[in-house]
Amino acid sequence: MLNKNGNIQNFIGCDASYDDAKIVIFGAPFDSTTSNRPGARFAPAAIRNDSQGIETYSPYQDFDMDGAPIYDAGDLELPFGDPQPALAMVEEAAGQIMTDGKTPVMLGGEHLLTLGAIIAAHRQYPNLRIIHLDAHTDLREDYLGQKLSHATVIKRCHDLLGNGKIHQFGIRSGTKEEFEWAKTHVSLQKFNLDGFAQLAQSLAEANAPVYFTLDLDVLDPAGFPGTGTPEAGGIDFHTLLTAIKALKQLKVVGCDVMELAPNLDTSGISTAIACKILRELLIAIL
Amino acid sequence: MLNKNGNIQNFIGCDASYDDAKIVIFGAPFDSTTSNRPGARFAPAAIRNDSQGIETYSPYQDFDMDGAPIYDAGDLELPFGDPQPALAMVEEAAGQIMTDGKTPVMLGGEHLLTLGAIIAAHRQYPNLRIIHLDAHTDLREDYLGQKLSHATVIKRCHDLLGNGKIHQFGIRSGTKEEFEWAKTHVSLQKFNLDGFAQLAQSLAEANAPVYFTLDLDVLDPAGFPGTGTPEAGGIDFHTLLTAIKALKQLKVVGCDVMELAPNLDTSGISTAIACKILRELLIAIL
Amino acid sequence: MLNKNGNIQNFIGCDASYDDAKIVIFGAPFDSTTSNRPGARFAPAAIRNDSQGIETYSPYQDFDMDGAPIYDAGDLELPFGDPQPALAMVEEAAGQIMTDGKTPVMLGGEHLLTLGAIIAAHRQYPNLRIIHLDAHTDLREDYLGQKLSHATVIKRCHDLLGNGKIHQFGIRSGTKEEFEWAKTHVSLQKFNLDGFAQLAQSLAEANAPVYFTLDLDVLDPAGFPGTGTPEAGGIDFHTLLTAIKALKQLKVVGCDVMELAPNLDTSGISTAIACKILRELLIAIL
Amino acid sequence: MLNKNGNIQNFIGCDASYDDAKIVIFGAPFDSTTSNRPGARFAPAAIRNDSQGIETYSPYQDFDMDGAPIYDAGDLELPFGDPQPALAMVEEAAGQIMTDGKTPVMLGGEHLLTLGAIIAAHRQYPNLRIIHLDAHTDLREDYLGQKLSHATVIKRCHDLLGNGKIHQFGIRSGTKEEFEWAKTHVSLQKFNLDGFAQLAQSLAEANAPVYFTLDLDVLDPAGFPGTGTPEAGGIDFHTLLTAIKALKQLKVVGCDVMELAPNLDTSGISTAIACKILRELLIAIL
Amino acid sequence: MLNKNGNIQNFIGCDASYDDAKIVIFGAPFDSTTSNRPGARFAPAAIRNDSQGIETYSPYQDFDMDGAPIYDAGDLELPFGDPQPALAMVEEAAGQIMTDGKTPVMLGGEHLLTLGAIIAAHRQYPNLRIIHLDAHTDLREDYLGQKLSHATVIKRCHDLLGNGKIHQFGIRSGTKEEFEWAKTHVSLQKFNLDGFAQLAQSLAEANAPVYFTLDLDVLDPAGFPGTGTPEAGGIDFHTLLTAIKALKQLKVVGCDVMELAPNLDTSGISTAIACKILRELLIAIL
Amino acid sequence: MLNKNGNIQNFIGCDASYDDAKIVIFGAPFDSTTSNRPGARFAPAAIRNDSQGIETYSPYQDFDMDGAPIYDAGDLELPFGDPQPALAMVEEAAGQIMTDGKTPVMLGGEHLLTLGAIIAAHRQYPNLRIIHLDAHTDLREDYLGQKLSHATVIKRCHDLLGNGKIHQFGIRSGTKEEFEWAKTHVSLQKFNLDGFAQLAQSLAEANAPVYFTLDLDVLDPAGFPGTGTPEAGGIDFHTLLTAIKALKQLKVVGCDVMELAPNLDTSGISTAIACKILRELLIAIL
Repeated sequence: MLNKNGNIQNFIGCDASYDDAKIVIFGAPFDSTTSNRPGARFAPAAIRNDSQGIETYSPYQDFDMDGAPIYDAGDLELPFGDPQPALAMVEEAAGQIMTDGKTPVMLGGEHLLTLGAIIAAHRQYPNLRIIHLDAHTDLREDYLGQKLSHATVIKRCHDLLGNGKIHQFGIRSGTKEEFEWAKTHVSLQKFNLDGFAQLAQSLAEANAPVYFTLDLDVLDPAGFPGTGTPEAGGIDFHTLLTAIKALKQLKVVGCDVMELAPNLDTSGISTAIACKILRELLIAIL
Repeated sequence: MLNKNGNIQNFIGCDASYDDAKIVIFGAPFDSTTSNRPGARFAPAAIRNDSQGIETYSPYQDFDMDGAPIYDAGDLELPFGDPQPALAMVEEAAGQIMTDGKTPVMLGGEHLLTLGAIIAAHRQYPNLRIIHLDAHTDLREDYLGQKLSHATVIKRCHDLLGNGKIHQFGIRSGTKEEFEWAKTHVSLQKFNLDGFAQLAQSLAEANAPVYFTLDLDVLDPAGFPGTGTPEAGGIDFHTLLTAIKALKQLKVVGCDVMELAPNLDTSGISTAIACKILRELLIAIL
Repeated sequence: MLNKNGNIQNFIGCDASYDDAKIVIFGAPFDSTTSNRPGARFAPAAIRNDSQGIETYSPYQDFDMDGAPIYDAGDLELPFGDPQPALAMVEEAAGQIMTDGKTPVMLGGEHLLTLGAIIAAHRQYPNLRIIHLDAHTDLREDYLGQKLSHATVIKRCHDLLGNGKIHQFGIRSGTKEEFEWAKTHVSLQKFNLDGFAQLAQSLAEANAPVYFTLDLDVLDPAGFPGTGTPEAGGIDFHTLLTAIKALKQLKVVGCDVMELAPNLDTSGISTAIACKILRELLIAIL
Repeated sequence: MLNKNGNIQNFIGCDASYDDAKIVIFGAPFDSTTSNRPGARFAPAAIRNDSQGIETYSPYQDFDMDGAPIYDAGDLELPFGDPQPALAMVEEAAGQIMTDGKTPVMLGGEHLLTLGAIIAAHRQYPNLRIIHLDAHTDLREDYLGQKLSHATVIKRCHDLLGNGKIHQFGIRSGTKEEFEWAKTHVSLQKFNLDGFAQLAQSLAEANAPVYFTLDLDVLDPAGFPGTGTPEAGGIDFHTLLTAIKALKQLKVVGCDVMELAPNLDTSGISTAIACKILRELLIAIL
Repeated sequence: MLNKNGNIQNFIGCDASYDDAKIVIFGAPFDSTTSNRPGARFAPAAIRNDSQGIETYSPYQDFDMDGAPIYDAGDLELPFGDPQPALAMVEEAAGQIMTDGKTPVMLGGEHLLTLGAIIAAHRQYPNLRIIHLDAHTDLREDYLGQKLSHATVIKRCHDLLGNGKIHQFGIRSGTKEEFEWAKTHVSLQKFNLDGFAQLAQSLAEANAPVYFTLDLDVLDPAGFPGTGTPEAGGIDFHTLLTAIKALKQLKVVGCDVMELAPNLDTSGISTAIACKILRELLIAIL
Repeated sequence: MLNKNGNIQNFIGCDASYDDAKIVIFGAPFDSTTSNRPGARFAPAAIRNDSQGIETYSPYQDFDMDGAPIYDAGDLELPFGDPQPALAMVEEAAGQIMTDGKTPVMLGGEHLLTLGAIIAAHRQYPNLRIIHLDAHTDLREDYLGQKLSHATVIKRCHDLLGNGKIHQFGIRSGTKEEFEWAKTHVSLQKFNLDGFAQLAQSLAEANAPVYFTLDLDVLDPAGFPGTGTPEAGGIDFHTLLTAIKALKQLKVVGCDVMELAPNLDTSGISTAIACKILRELLIAIL
């Protein structure tokens, strides 16, 4: 009964070795640029812990991920403050996983960290596309003078990828300037996920490498209150689930699940929905 | 002004005497087998207390239950730990109420306690049917070796009633094995309440005795965060209300409202919705 | 960098001077007659503070209210206990703003305070109409003997305005007597906002002066848990937003946003949605 | 097992009938004049509920109060808002208990309610003395113009009793004017309970009728965070216990335990200490 | 940077292998017999997680436990409900550790689990002594008919060890019968730790095998609010620290740290103090 | 009644103009390097808001600060992430205040910000002394490679001031290396404030310029739970008050009150004690 080989803590069902894995999960507990309410740093540990309360079987996709080739690498040890070292560590970790022919799944942490993974993915896949679900545009050029911020991350990705490569959905908050800029540089679907299926189909036909970045605050705060900047009028679980299932047909080369702040939701429903979404996402991209 | 006859605390409007009552409410504050987050033990007291904040009049059914023949017996004193004594006490209480020609309404407490009431109901009504609303299958044969568990309760009921007598709705979490087993032993409606009206009509035509067991976690966590294992993707208040109103035509011989954990929802909306659902349920089965 | 001219705290973007303003916001932190769970007193400060987390730009109305002629007067200093002095202060403040040709927007506080603003508005506009969104009828003649109560406020308004001038929407809780009385004295739409667009059009055609009073508990508790008496089965953000946009065509002479109790929602989503609704309301009536 | 005679909810062990009782407990759930953080209205219900977690036996006084002649009358139904009706009801209840030769123990509720009990006590005992434990002076002449307020209650008592009859202990917050005024009208011990034993002895020798009013915020917030206006630097449990035991020798004609706000302390330790203090107080004055 | 060898989660600094270890920590997440407020099941995970916020160096004992021969075995998987299987698993785990010549340190979980460890320790050390720090006697013969309960655990230990072998300190709550019984069967120090140093010295001189069981609720709730049944009037950190340091001279053959319920203390200070006490305890018994 | 001149929000009683002021308060809402639990960013707003619940009169120093020459400049707008810009802004603000012959009082925010104020103070007063009250040494050379961190701030100050100029009190957590280093570079009083009075007297005699930096976590978590890294075994309010009163005799050229994290203490006692300590500090250094 007593375990003599160390106290391993994984996301439920993700017990493969690194070598055997097709997907590698890692946590990125960092939120130093969060300007509103911090707490995303606590998400990876909370997700792993509360994942013990969900099943490994998905009745939505009729699949049991127990025994699937998924490895959970635990958390990176990211220093707080200046985000440059943290970004470099994320870039290195995601890059190494992709170099080893596996798919990285990052658990944020704040959304800025996505930039580290995108840099690594873009290096390996120069024609990378980004599918971005979020309540916020994240297209500022700088935020109070800082170029590296949760509020600028997609703009920094655009610096790298250029026009027409980024597909935003569910956006319902930003400055007037960001919405204007978006019209000529990215595709931006306001308020909902209309057009997601069509995009997925066209990207599938093109066999384009896709990075899927999910800022969980795209969900309505009713079902997902635990995030730094909740925005009323979001999408519900079933809508997000439909989008995730549409990823099955795509060549997903990396993805992330960001901005859960479990400390802001004492009821625990935000972490619970994050766990379930992660399960569905893992099954979809296996 | 000063009350000299004792401090009575009932669910709002349920002030009949036991002898005059057609419905008898009792609380069952027990949650020892809860494997995730406990707290259902606190539900009966919270429901009675917060019921002072709702009206006795339902605009949905245009009925005022003030003065209705409903008696609130308070809580059973159930010992924690081994669930056998608690189950025996529930069985005795529900049995006595049914023997006296009244309808028991149990306020849980964890879902395992339903088994006690079902044993009593099945003894009196051998052709008993169970309508079960829940997020979870509750069909495990055992849970970490324990036969008596919140996760096995409907399987234990099936041991008693046999095939085709149990009708599950709203189910969205369970093991692959449970979902497989369900296909040939019970009727299980995944995710929603589709088919509820038809079932109600056919049971009404058959004049079948029905036990209605409501695990409140069938509701979406957005509106009902206060439960041990919240499962995203649930039904909303209006859907549940429609089902409850459909009970009017049935021969309901017992029912229960389970798994509110008020300690997990500091906003109080979970207890508030439980109070309102209980009001609607009482009016529907009067 | 150091501000030498005082620490001004406004609702975001509402930085005009009193003289330049077309709209004047004031807070009314009072909830002494709240009979269930108090806390609406904390709403004005919470709304101002958390408004820093939203944008001044509305993607729903494609309008940036930064620089708009809106002045935030801070809070009235209302004494707790007997509500008469507080009502008189609200009446005076709202009256002065209207006399100065501006539109008052009150941030409650409890719903009773609306009476103070209505008295002032009715004095200036004898043919005043009230549009009232709420979960509760608020039509009691008295509450435990008190004539001035959050539960009687619309009845007191009717004392002043008479039959046919008050239009209630979203109502889903009250006594049987209130619902009966409403049939012949006010227009009352149960459960939802059906008919709102038609009403708005007819009032616009009549160019009738309208006071818009928004008890935020008209929203479903899932998205708005932070209120004294949450009532399941409410409307969602998009439905409310549609109604608010319909105010654009009306002659709104005053309005209020009442009954947020931020202390009851530790997740902060209730204050966040209140901020966004206030932004949309301000833009709609500019 | 099933209780057929109503759901009685008393403070633990206080199960005597009114007629047999020497002490009568009643709750006074009202806090409308509370100017800082409300919630004292929730104290009586919380104290009764959580009292199930303490023992009836006191190891401090080596006495088991199970079976003692104490009756719990439940709560008065006090309307919120204008405090006059609530004060009248408290006065009537306390007066009736004293007229019947019993000792009233009021569970607040806010401190203003003490005035109702003092009016009743002073009518029956014109030479009444008040022992007052509190963090606050409560000696304002008015508060924002209101004569009846939690901040003026002891001043109102002085209006009735006159100079030299009121003995304050533990006081550590008030205006400069209040502290000045106190010097010539009451006895006021700053910060601690020094001198309590001597006072008790002298009042015992004089056989003076004493009303003991305990504002629980006299305790340090470390051990008692759940109160509207916590003041650092308070006394600890053992110090308060020593004072309470010193009441044994006195002719206590009434007492109260005020200003627990259980909603402000999610850990529950404030209600727990209030329960234990109430137990010790009841035993001391039996 | 990316860890390819599994996500190990230990109490800070306890990174030895099982074979090298002198002390073996294991978690026992079970609280089914808790009759008041559950949550002790969450303690082991919370302690490991929050231990990252303390240092491995103790300025109190001037010792850095980084690299010390301590192994953290993670948690036992204990089924909820009937406590017998859980007790058997604890007995087996503690027994195996002792058989291997190491010292078990159990992280509860509820206090009943101590019985499992005591059975194992008593088998190996028939002249075992127990030092028991607690707010509660835990000497009931049964609790609502249940022999195995958090409220009976020390009585069950006495069944095993007999008179004069159990030394209780800090006790301030229990029934009159328990305190009476204690006088002739165990040594019980009420309220404080007076006499601890003398006891430690005499046990050291006798070289007696000692099991040290620490119910953390011996601490005052001010500094340790996160426990199921907080009891005012407890000891402070420095007093407990002095006792722990006195264990250095003893032959401690096993110990446990029980009854932290982190869910009841949102501030986190209870888990923080538990971490620090565990650090000091580990250093003391190394 | 209606304020037409803007909504000013100051710490209670601090209503002087900048020009008239002797003391200037400013807030520094930044906590990006906080490695454990963030939230200190919320402190300045919380302190101002909750200060309305305390009196301007101190019974401890018998002084009413209403009307005193203290100006509250509101908060600096500090960008999150890289701490360099925030430090520069603090340095500029504190420097300007000192240049204008006034005393800056900074409300943190995290402790790293103290460095900005120290740089400014040291420029003006090269023989500056620092009195530092804290639970933590804050003497690391770097933290995960970052030189600028809450955990390195006093080391950075030492880089500037050199040996023998920094006086630490209350320290009870740090690495073995930090405690060793401290022995030869600073004066460090472990656990308590012993020696504070002597130090104050000698600095007074030397008329040395003193910067007083107060990390509020020097207080025991029982009375001050709301901080990122609570450390058991701290000092109490009266001990801290005595130290603050001893500052009266010193030439205090700047001070700060850091590391309140109000979000971590839902009871509000941490903010309440911070307000009172700030009041006492302001009075002491006037």
